[in-house]
Amino acid sequence: MRIGVLGTGTVGRALAGKLRELGHDVVVGSRVAGDDAQPFADAAAHGELIVNATNGAYALDTLAQAGAENLRGKILVDVTNPLDFSRGRPPTLSVCNDDSLAEQIQRANPEVRVVKTLNTVNANVMVEPSLVPGEHNLFVSGDDADAKAEVVDLLESFGWQRDLILDLGDITTARGPEMYLPLWLRLFGAVAAPNFNIHVVRG
Amino acid sequence: MRIGVLGTGTVGRALAGKLRELGHDVVVGSRVAGDDAQPFADAAAHGELIVNATNGAYALDTLAQAGAENLRGKILVDVTNPLDFSRGRPPTLSVCNDDSLAEQIQRANPEVRVVKTLNTVNANVMVEPSLVPGEHNLFVSGDDADAKAEVVDLLESFGWQRDLILDLGDITTARGPEMYLPLWLRLFGAVAAPNFNIHVVRG
Repeated sequence: MRIGVLGTGTVGRALAGKLRELGHDVVVGSRVAGDDAQPFADAAAHGELIVNATNGAYALDTLAQAGAENLRGKILVDVTNPLDFSRGRPPTLSVCNDDSLAEQIQRANPEVRVVKTLNTVNANVMVEPSLVPGEHNLFVSGDDADAKAEVVDLLESFGWQRDLILDLGDITTARGPEMYLPLWLRLFGAVAAPNFNIHVVRG
Repeated sequence: MRIGVLGTGTVGRALAGKLRELGHDVVVGSRVAGDDAQPFADAAAHGELIVNATNGAYALDTLAQAGAENLRGKILVDVTNPLDFSRGRPPTLSVCNDDSLAEQIQRANPEVRVVKTLNTVNANVMVEPSLVPGEHNLFVSGDDADAKAEVVDLLESFGWQRDLILDLGDITTARGPEMYLPLWLRLFGAVAAPNFNIHVVRG
């Protein structure tokens, strides 16, 4: 598949690398085009599916630069967290509670099929879930059922077990995984392990 | 131990029942005193340890009614969630991101040793963790290490495994477990099971 990955940070590089390894035709988009990256608009135009792996603070700007005509009708896999470091560490969220970054992205780009996922694990675990042993979960949120199904297929190709990918519901449910980040940040300290994830255990 | 349980909702009743079953001398406090409940101040005066199991919206008021002189120097186990139903369901949080209910309670009652815990599971699981099979975690947050150690002992007596109770750090870390609630609420729908919890799996 032709895929545009927006963002050249740790997450963008990990996802682009994995997608290429899986045989996809990937163009990476960056604010500063270079050897390995093209402008956001070119990456978006290239992709049948787009991955938003920018810094959360720049996500809306990046998608505006990518251009509505290059995004229209496509699936946008949003893996960002709206982290705000302006008040120090640990960061707060720039949006939460009665809204989410995923919803802001969907509202600003109504013709894009936004699917929120992967934001609850680090870049290593995103593309190599077996780094965390046994069963653990991933979440998907989005308004478009077909888009979510396609993204679940893609996640399965990364190594995520289909029955461990929980569909939380429409795009407003992205508030849950985004607001989990403050707990993730404290767990990162408490478990003292770089790679971890949560498993939802049912009674 | 003499314990005051503030609140007569599902959570307060479950905790009071379990504590009595374990042999503790429990007085339950309620806004409306009756056969089974005394005024908040009497329950607080009775307890060597206090459990705050009120509705999050009334938590600060309840503790004001309980009276600083009845709380001074005691451990306050805060199990509440700051749920705000004024904008419909699912609820939002009345405080989050750069503050938490646990921190508000600690600031309003500086001589109380607040320990946040148990707010990430339902009342059934709080007092009977084996309702969820296998390993799953609980979190504690608080500024006073001795208070947290005493609360961990109490949780162990409920059936929680000591090594599965993760100390997240000081009282500001309560933002994590409180902000997990929006995910908990969506998981409640997605897993379609009344009793569930998360297990933090390390890589």
